Amino acid sequence: MPATIALLTDFGLSDVYVGVMKAVILRRAPHALFIDLTHEIAPGDVRDAAFKLWQAHSFLPSGTIILAVVDPGVGSGRRALAAGTPDFLCVGPDNGIFTFLLAGRTDTRAVEIPAHGSASATFHGRDVFAPAAARLAAGEALSDLGPALAAPVAVPLPVLRIQGDGLEGEVVSVDRFGNAVTSIGCLRGSARGLRLEPWIPSCAPTDLRGLPSHARLEDGTELPVVRTFSDAAEGAGLACVGSSGLLEIAVSRGSASEIFHLRPGAPVTLFFEGR
Amino acid sequence: MPATIALLTDFGLSDVYVGVMKAVILRRAPHALFIDLTHEIAPGDVRDAAFKLWQAHSFLPSGTIILAVVDPGVGSGRRALAAGTPDFLCVGPDNGIFTFLLAGRTDTRAVEIPAHGSASATFHGRDVFAPAAARLAAGEALSDLGPALAAPVAVPLPVLRIQGDGLEGEVVSVDRFGNAVTSIGCLRGSARGLRLEPWIPSCAPTDLRGLPSHARLEDGTELPVVRTFSDAAEGAGLACVGSSGLLEIAVSRGSASEIFHLRPGAPVTLFFEGR
Amino acid sequence: MPATIALLTDFGLSDVYVGVMKAVILRRAPHALFIDLTHEIAPGDVRDAAFKLWQAHSFLPSGTIILAVVDPGVGSGRRALAAGTPDFLCVGPDNGIFTFLLAGRTDTRAVEIPAHGSASATFHGRDVFAPAAARLAAGEALSDLGPALAAPVAVPLPVLRIQGDGLEGEVVSVDRFGNAVTSIGCLRGSARGLRLEPWIPSCAPTDLRGLPSHARLEDGTELPVVRTFSDAAEGAGLACVGSSGLLEIAVSRGSASEIFHLRPGAPVTLFFEGR
Repeated sequence: MPATIALLTDFGLSDVYVGVMKAVILRRAPHALFIDLTHEIAPGDVRDAAFKLWQAHSFLPSGTIILAVVDPGVGSGRRALAAGTPDFLCVGPDNGIFTFLLAGRTDTRAVEIPAHGSASATFHGRDVFAPAAARLAAGEALSDLGPALAAPVAVPLPVLRIQGDGLEGEVVSVDRFGNAVTSIGCLRGSARGLRLEPWIPSCAPTDLRGLPSHARLEDGTELPVVRTFSDAAEGAGLACVGSSGLLEIAVSRGSASEIFHLRPGAPVTLFFEGR
Repeated sequence: MPATIALLTDFGLSDVYVGVMKAVILRRAPHALFIDLTHEIAPGDVRDAAFKLWQAHSFLPSGTIILAVVDPGVGSGRRALAAGTPDFLCVGPDNGIFTFLLAGRTDTRAVEIPAHGSASATFHGRDVFAPAAARLAAGEALSDLGPALAAPVAVPLPVLRIQGDGLEGEVVSVDRFGNAVTSIGCLRGSARGLRLEPWIPSCAPTDLRGLPSHARLEDGTELPVVRTFSDAAEGAGLACVGSSGLLEIAVSRGSASEIFHLRPGAPVTLFFEGR
Repeated sequence: MPATIALLTDFGLSDVYVGVMKAVILRRAPHALFIDLTHEIAPGDVRDAAFKLWQAHSFLPSGTIILAVVDPGVGSGRRALAAGTPDFLCVGPDNGIFTFLLAGRTDTRAVEIPAHGSASATFHGRDVFAPAAARLAAGEALSDLGPALAAPVAVPLPVLRIQGDGLEGEVVSVDRFGNAVTSIGCLRGSARGLRLEPWIPSCAPTDLRGLPSHARLEDGTELPVVRTFSDAAEGAGLACVGSSGLLEIAVSRGSASEIFHLRPGAPVTLFFEGR
């Protein structure tokens, strides 16, 4: 099977940078297959990149090499990282971009990719990370890439906690449709009611009493929890468990982000019937 | 030959949704080839999606699986559709997105893809349509996907009719350059003058007297019919038969959409010399 | 090895035009691999296209077919071009789009691709250039595509000259991050100090005394020459040798293009210590 490389960057699509990275890889690993996750991360937004990698990773073919370059510290002292788990490999700057992928895993090996003298000071995607991904794609072992790296940098995990009668989280990412994905999840039914399965190790699994009834935004707006977008009237706000298992704030055939001014970090609280 | 899958969605490229769909397909059909038609359909604009699929379809390799997801009714009662013709297969929501592809064909078989319990309520592209496309790509028969579906939903076909001395149509789609593609076509030379070959069965083939002379917009603007963009002075408006065989309103090295305020639905009438 | 085709157009990604070009190629060369360089060239901006092809070309796999379509003169008398060098092949309109790729080379053969009668008047990307690239991808010889073409059209090369105490150039391209790439380069260390290796034959190699100290913009702003973006304080302007070996004007974690109003053509002068 040819190696699959999943790419995520903040390079945008109006320059040739993404194409150049792929060209560099194909020169060394001509049978590599690419999956573009996105190249439209806001410039330097490592935390959004980290979250979007998490959204995608469990759907990737086993053994996929995740090449992620959002790298505002390029050319500085920040380390270059490659890591491997039984499920995937990843290559990128050691700036927290793999926080959500690696958080809580005990089966990860990480190595530091040494900078070589001929690398440019401003485009390690082309000169450091793509070559490293290509070497993995061509069958080299992770340990051939460099010495062990003990503690990869991590970005802060989002808020998720029991707060009074509710479960308090925050908006983590806003998508193209204006849906605001929150840190509240994963909520699954259990024998005793509802169970909060931690999607990241920011809080322990918790049994909750009652079913989710409504969500409250920072400005006091209360939105009903429904099953899907079209369960609310056109233009009406709603909360639902989205496709990543996380609570989303949405507007039926509209943009919740615009209507409710929701940006990453905005607090959202979920309340339960009968609590 | 590996299966070719042509994708069209309104997911945009700033989220990981398109990449996740491809990942889901590659897990089941690792040799599938992808052709991205566009992912920048305006959110929920089923009719523009339907037209753009028509623009592209006749150029696709024979047997291409067309996977189209513009799905504002996701999670509601709308059906999921797969259809096959001798030329192509298609998979997507049964909301009219294949109207232009299937209109007038008598060689189509359609099936309803049943929803399975583990599908999310908000991302059937990942959970229903990509898996169905992957099954077709892996060689399964259309009939294995579900029971026959009798009458796929259709969106209204655009206006195209003889009106007084002219041929009245409407703008169907506006492209990146601001060129406004209309429903007026396909015009071909015939022994008796010009013949309107219906590109969709909204009107019968018609013999027209004379050659097209000019087009008139809703505000009365009259534009000459020329062969190509550069046949008009820079900045001047024009009409020409575009690459899909349909009349287009354009501005030489400018944007007709901006200058003439043309949006889908705007009426355009084509007049003929000597009528 | 399957043929690799690198694409660059101004078609954008909201229409199906790029996908249709790929489909046309795959029908004739089903094993072709694509590298998308960019499709977001500003409509008709041949010079920016020409520069971006230069930025990418040396990283492409040997023998790559470069298919570039920024073609405001489509349907007019402009010629269609295919050219070959020992490193790459290229196909596109003969309007200067390959100026930077071919400037100064003496190992290039160029042919004129004849227009065929069934080509549309407005989409030669689909009807002329993609079929020609597909024929090359399928193994046909360049000379089979048409008769020799003597002098391809060229766009003006950017300014780069010694001016008083400094080296005067101009902004050539602005990237997604707002970094302004200039014509000043390639600067390399030499025995006698710094040597200007001409990246395009617009000036001769020159030995320069001293090390670069600062760059001056048209409005008099002076910016220090540093090694990489993070060597300046956040929000501070800087100049550095970018990943293409050309001097770039940048702002650490900001947009130089916005802050300094830099557009292609804006003059930039580089000064040296001790001159």
